[in-house]
Amino acid sequence: MRLINNLNNFRLIQTCSHSKARAGELITPHGMVPTPVFLPVGSQATVKTLTPDDIKDIGVSIVLANAYHLYLRPGIAVIEKMGGLHKFMAWDRAILTDSGGYQIFSLASLRKVSDDGVIFRSHIDGSQHLITPELIIQFQEALGADIIMALDECPAYDDSFEKVNRAASRTYQWADRCQRAQKRNDQALYAIVQGGVFPQLRHQSAEYLTSLGFSGYAIGGLSLGEPKRVTLAMTEVTVALLPENKPRYLMGIGSPDDLLEGIARGVDIFDSALPTRVARNGAFFTRLGRANIQNTGYSQIEQPIDPDCDCYTCRTFSAAYLHHLFSCDELLAYRLASIHNLNFINNLMNKARSAILNGTFSSFKDNFLVSYQPTDEQIRLNQKQKWLKSRSLGE
Amino acid sequence: MRLINNLNNFRLIQTCSHSKARAGELITPHGMVPTPVFLPVGSQATVKTLTPDDIKDIGVSIVLANAYHLYLRPGIAVIEKMGGLHKFMAWDRAILTDSGGYQIFSLASLRKVSDDGVIFRSHIDGSQHLITPELIIQFQEALGADIIMALDECPAYDDSFEKVNRAASRTYQWADRCQRAQKRNDQALYAIVQGGVFPQLRHQSAEYLTSLGFSGYAIGGLSLGEPKRVTLAMTEVTVALLPENKPRYLMGIGSPDDLLEGIARGVDIFDSALPTRVARNGAFFTRLGRANIQNTGYSQIEQPIDPDCDCYTCRTFSAAYLHHLFSCDELLAYRLASIHNLNFINNLMNKARSAILNGTFSSFKDNFLVSYQPTDEQIRLNQKQKWLKSRSLGE
Repeated sequence: MRLINNLNNFRLIQTCSHSKARAGELITPHGMVPTPVFLPVGSQATVKTLTPDDIKDIGVSIVLANAYHLYLRPGIAVIEKMGGLHKFMAWDRAILTDSGGYQIFSLASLRKVSDDGVIFRSHIDGSQHLITPELIIQFQEALGADIIMALDECPAYDDSFEKVNRAASRTYQWADRCQRAQKRNDQALYAIVQGGVFPQLRHQSAEYLTSLGFSGYAIGGLSLGEPKRVTLAMTEVTVALLPENKPRYLMGIGSPDDLLEGIARGVDIFDSALPTRVARNGAFFTRLGRANIQNTGYSQIEQPIDPDCDCYTCRTFSAAYLHHLFSCDELLAYRLASIHNLNFINNLMNKARSAILNGTFSSFKDNFLVSYQPTDEQIRLNQKQKWLKSRSLGE
Repeated sequence: MRLINNLNNFRLIQTCSHSKARAGELITPHGMVPTPVFLPVGSQATVKTLTPDDIKDIGVSIVLANAYHLYLRPGIAVIEKMGGLHKFMAWDRAILTDSGGYQIFSLASLRKVSDDGVIFRSHIDGSQHLITPELIIQFQEALGADIIMALDECPAYDDSFEKVNRAASRTYQWADRCQRAQKRNDQALYAIVQGGVFPQLRHQSAEYLTSLGFSGYAIGGLSLGEPKRVTLAMTEVTVALLPENKPRYLMGIGSPDDLLEGIARGVDIFDSALPTRVARNGAFFTRLGRANIQNTGYSQIEQPIDPDCDCYTCRTFSAAYLHHLFSCDELLAYRLASIHNLNFINNLMNKARSAILNGTFSSFKDNFLVSYQPTDEQIRLNQKQKWLKSRSLGE
């Protein structure tokens, strides 16, 4: 089984001389994915409000879906019967499915974790389910994504050393079982490094998992409410322990400033629902920070909200029109904002990659961050907590 | 002023020999509109969930917007400042603006009607407003639609003869004032025939209005909850009183069977929010009637919901996928269903027009109606009542 999991699906092209930033390529059965790359989140087999064509127009080469969500609705067997996930959602480029470890540990209720697996109640109808590492691989093989994820136990960011240690050990054992359970040889299996905010546990987790030899390594258990400097420090610690020739995937990161910081620390792959979630609240990414279209200042602006932007929304509509749509709660508003934010992030990743290839990444990053006003951290954390509490479906 | 309002914007091409159905063309500053035609409703300067490109892909040549809604939000002055309604909503084909008479009489509260105009409170924030015929023309000239509507008083379908009579007289006086108030010479002004379910009043209303000479005539005050046979009888009565060489517009009709019945009675133009409203509830038009995608029978159907259909939704997605999106309340669901229903109606109108031109309209209509199962009238009326009561914004 080792051979399968060492699928050489990553080509490292260039590393920045001033930082750990790298440019590469993921080779998948559904096309090449240039890295660093950001994956729009389509948990339920749809990037919220957008068609596959909208996403292609933006230039997206890979999206994320979620095995936990799809297992609950519409059910893995339905998607398999419909010809697999690509055909089901009419997306012929690459897909990564998350195993749903994070969702089971954040959305489902009445969880009972044992070494065998996890018993939980559905966040939708309360029905009881047992998920094991073997099952999650079986599900993801039936879905047929290009990249699949091992089952992990994802502790809360403020859990004790002891609890995080147990979760990391279990994640290691589960990754081993996932690897052994894999039957298809055309899917790259990534393991997820856990260890919370404890460098020692990150070290152990990475060491164990890399000894098994996976096609890629994710950094899990971050961006859960901890301060940003901790997220970055743990990313740095973890990346240092991962092999050079395998892709690194930082889960749950999606704000422009965080993405550049992650890239500078050697991360190749990111995903987050943030760009589309904040879009639906009227926040548009711009070079200067997030602009909220609901501010009355936009009600009579004939220019696009981001005059530098080449997306469909900014090419077509004035800020005043977008302001009007949000004022009226018109559904088109959410789609137009989602297109803008995903386009912004996709362009940012493309520019970062070009800069890495040209040897100018450090100055590119510095220039961007000097003008980009990040959202105040306290506001961010409050928003995140509010969202974590309020959501019933997640993304 | 007569000359302006007699703008020759309609060319009658052919009349059916077995029915009153007619094929023609509306000539507008934003292109030719083949008739009979159905106008998708974009009251707030957006056809709900769709971009202008979505609507163009369907082949739509004209949409409806609403002066009442746009007056309240974002305000007429804002749209004027943004370069007019076409530019504001990024739609370069034809637009018809309804005056909002119906909305003022169905949505607004604390109405006080006098011969001068109508004082009402906004359904959004309760603010008080006075609308007069002169103002409504001023608003519609600022918006800049290709076809504009006179202000009418729209009584409820079960109002007394006396009340309907008063409303019809007032509508006549207001139409006269609208005509006199018109300053632009590039907009076709249509008057609205009222008279409720009383043939005598329809007769009077039509006679008065045609004596003033408008560019087109609408049949208002129908599809408000009265039985369908009454709608059709009143349409027949009214059309008979209208000049041959002017377009006839039946307001608020949008189900496939009603459209064919309206065409057979000599109507050229229709509008209704029904196709997009029922789409958002999961009802897809098919040759056999409305299919509700939420039925569990669709959960594993790999075919499109309407295998005969050439729309983007049916070309791209299985019924199972649409069922899944509706189950998850995914916003994309509403858009995909809206595309399908508008495409269905647009195709129906194109086929009806070809049949009129080929002299085969009667058999086309009979064939369609024999297989199309209309929604049960009692269910329809209940749905309509429920909707009229529940809506706060209208379409």
